[in-house]
This record gives sequence, structure tokens and C-alpha cells, in this order.
Amino acid sequence: MLQLFLVGIGTGNADHITKEAENAIRSADLILLPHKEDNKAELAQVRLSLLQRLEVGDDRIAHFDMPVRRQQGSDYDRQVDEWHEAIAQRWQSCLQAHLPSGQGRIALLVWGDPALYDSTLRIASRLGLAQQQVTVIPGITSMQVLCSAHGIALNEIGSPFLVTTGRQLREAGWPPNINTLVVMLDGQCSYEQVTEPNVTIYWGAYLGMPQQILMHGALGDVKAAISAQRQRARAEHGWIMDIYLLRRG
Amino acid sequence: MLQLFLVGIGTGNADHITKEAENAIRSADLILLPHKEDNKAELAQVRLSLLQRLEVGDDRIAHFDMPVRRQQGSDYDRQVDEWHEAIAQRWQSCLQAHLPSGQGRIALLVWGDPALYDSTLRIASRLGLAQQQVTVIPGITSMQVLCSAHGIALNEIGSPFLVTTGRQLREAGWPPNINTLVVMLDGQCSYEQVTEPNVTIYWGAYLGMPQQILMHGALGDVKAAISAQRQRARAEHGWIMDIYLLRRG
Repeated sequence: MLQLFLVGIGTGNADHITKEAENAIRSADLILLPHKEDNKAELAQVRLSLLQRLEVGDDRIAHFDMPVRRQQGSDYDRQVDEWHEAIAQRWQSCLQAHLPSGQGRIALLVWGDPALYDSTLRIASRLGLAQQQVTVIPGITSMQVLCSAHGIALNEIGSPFLVTTGRQLREAGWPPNINTLVVMLDGQCSYEQVTEPNVTIYWGAYLGMPQQILMHGALGDVKAAISAQRQRARAEHGWIMDIYLLRRG
Repeated sequence: MLQLFLVGIGTGNADHITKEAENAIRSADLILLPHKEDNKAELAQVRLSLLQRLEVGDDRIAHFDMPVRRQQGSDYDRQVDEWHEAIAQRWQSCLQAHLPSGQGRIALLVWGDPALYDSTLRIASRLGLAQQQVTVIPGITSMQVLCSAHGIALNEIGSPFLVTTGRQLREAGWPPNINTLVVMLDGQCSYEQVTEPNVTIYWGAYLGMPQQILMHGALGDVKAAISAQRQRARAEHGWIMDIYLLRRG
């Protein structure tokens, strides 16, 4: 039988790895390793280094190129659907090529945690596997590393927090009675549009990696500097992954 | 100089531990180990087993009894304030007794992640340490283990989710435009008060531990069974830690 392990590996710091994740990777018969456009080669390298550190030989790694999502048209849901289907087909091709018996333990390395703004679980559901054939292994998320790096808590005492996306912040705004927002997937510096006073921002990019950048302060005072820093860093590295927390009061 | 490490250790599964957490524990000069009321002795035992597994000898462990929070009166904020101050004083006593030079590496083991509904970071801020003397090490949270165990994602595609408490759910309700709620710290089965149709609940208790219990289904169909199961389990073990996710549609 096929066993699929979706393994959260944290945000790029090899020390984020849990014992559970390490065991799953070490005992996998095959690791599916996606490669994206060239400017994210650094990220593929982080994964490869992790595998080398865990003594996973090349013969257990199936490299494949990630399909590119069609971005023309306003049919976003359909674009995502087509894209997930194309990824699932690449996985199937890898499995047929490397595990023709249809048996074995397959691992996929997921940034952060497979439960948080990640498609791997949804793509896996296209393979027609039974629930007990799919194991999700949690990993440290960028949200947690952001808080750890700034030395802050996610929540205020007994209070809620909302985890959302840049697009949602722009379109739905900031709910009045929820004083903490964590914003992910924001390529457009949506914090710039928050104009209310007395807001603190805690921002981080490349969290957990050697190139980590942290900035924080009163939103009105630092937002221009964060956007400028973000642009510089992105130009320098060719890519950026960032996240921020906004807090009222 | 004193260096304080607040170490997230996950939810009781020793395999949740990250390499970073393991390193911090192994290299600590002193581990502060709180003991709570008798019915949580199992939890203290989980921590002790972890320390034994990491070869931390008894001479590096400072046991202390957790103060009890005064629960009479409606001055909740003041009760918490007094309680945190009392805990900080116990820490100080341990440090004076075990590290009279005022130098060394101290670790505190925190369930889940120190950033998520935990007081350790706030208590630490009472010690008058500089920011660079305090290091927070993220750990796997119950929220993540809940999702992993049920094989679900926290968020729907591109959508937000709210992390909140049982009290908040009872008092502030469920915001209409946020379709996923994660509810923590709910000793009162507040999901029973949610009456809207088409809600699915994913519930888990003792997540990551051998006694883990999972239940899920249409809220209206399963809520009575969950409450009954919760009561039975709590009676059997003498304590319970649980969490759930509610999703519309």
C-alpha cells in the first residue's frame, strides 16, 4: 500500500525540524522534491541541504518541475483547480516511475505546516487515497517564528486573533473588535492601506533563515521603511517570503 | 549573564520536539519545572520523561510548586496580575537557590508554543531582563495537532480564520464573515451554544498523547456526544485539555 507523508519542515531553519518529521523523512522510500522557477532555487537548496543532513541519498529523491498556474483571466478558482490537478499528475508520474509496485512510503516536504495556507493536502486528496494512507506532520510556521523573533505573543490575554491574507485585508478590512491580525500571502504591502492610529506592526522576512530581516514600530512611522526594505531585499535575493502582525493599542 | 529560554515542547508527544528545542534543553544549566495541583501529575510526568530522554540529570532540574490563582471576586485582570507576580517570584527563588552567581542558561518548558495562549513570556517580562536575554523557541501547538490528526487544513483557500477562546465565543459570538473558528481554553463546551445550521466541528482532546480522542461531524448531530465524551474522559483522567475547530458550510 502507498503511504503519503506531508511533512511540515518549518521556515528554512534546519533546527525547526521535529523528531516526528525527521523520522518520516528518514524512513521514506521516496521524497518528491518540486522545483519552481529559477529565482527560488535558494529554497530548493534549503530542502536539499535538509535531506543531505538527514542522509537521504539521491536514489530516494524524485525531482519534478512544478507546473505554472495560468494567470490570465478572472477565473481564479478554476486556475487553482487546473493547477492542483496538474501537480497531482506530476506526483503520479513520479510514483509510477520510482515505485512501480504502487507500494511504499512517500514524503513531501512542506514549508511551515501543511495545515496553514498550503495546497499539499488538497492536492493529495486528488490521488484517491484512503484517509489512513495520508499522514500530516505539523511543522513550525512563519507565524510562530515571527512571534519568537520579536519576542511577542500572538494573542493578548484571553483575546482572539485573526489570521488572514493581504487580499482579505484589502477587500474585507480589519474587523473592529479583533485587535490582532496576522497577515500572510501579502505581495502588495496591504498594511500601507491601514490608516487608523495606534497600530503597531511586527514584520519579518526570510524568517528562520540566515538572511532574516525584522522590523517593528508604530505602523504610521515605519510602514514606508518596511516597504522600501521589502523591495530592496526582494531585488537582492530574487524572491521574498514575509509575514506581519498588526496590533491595535 | 542570565539567559532565559522559553521552549515550546508541543502537546505531549515527545516526537513533537524540534532540534532547536532539544538543543536549548540539553545545553541549559537549569530547568525550572513547575508542579500544579495533583490531578495534573500526568502532565508533569510527560515533562520529566522528556527531560530524561534528553539526558538532563536531576541536578539540573529545579522543581517548584505553581502558585494558585485567587478565583474569588470579579477583578479578573488583577487576579492574573497577582498570579503572574507570584510565579515570577518563585522563578527568582529558584534562580537564587540554584544559580547564586546570577549567570547561566535557564530553560522553561512550555506546552505548545510560548506565543499561543501562554503566560510564560509575560511572566518573564517581570524579571527585568533585557530583550536579548530572553529567547523564545516555537513549538508545535494543539491547533496544528488537531488539524494534522483530522487531516484538515486550518484555512479554506485564501480565507481567514479566527483563533479565539470559549469565553469569547460565548460573549462575542461568531463573526458572520469568518467561516473558520479555532476555539481554545473552553472549559464550558461553548460550541453547544452555536445553533446555526451547516456547521462542522472537529474536536480533539489529549492531542498527541496516547490517550488522544478525536470526534467530528455536523455540529448539531455530534455536540451532545462530544460533551458526554469530554465529561467521561475528564472524570477518568482527572484533567482534560481539548480544542476544536468550527467551520461553516
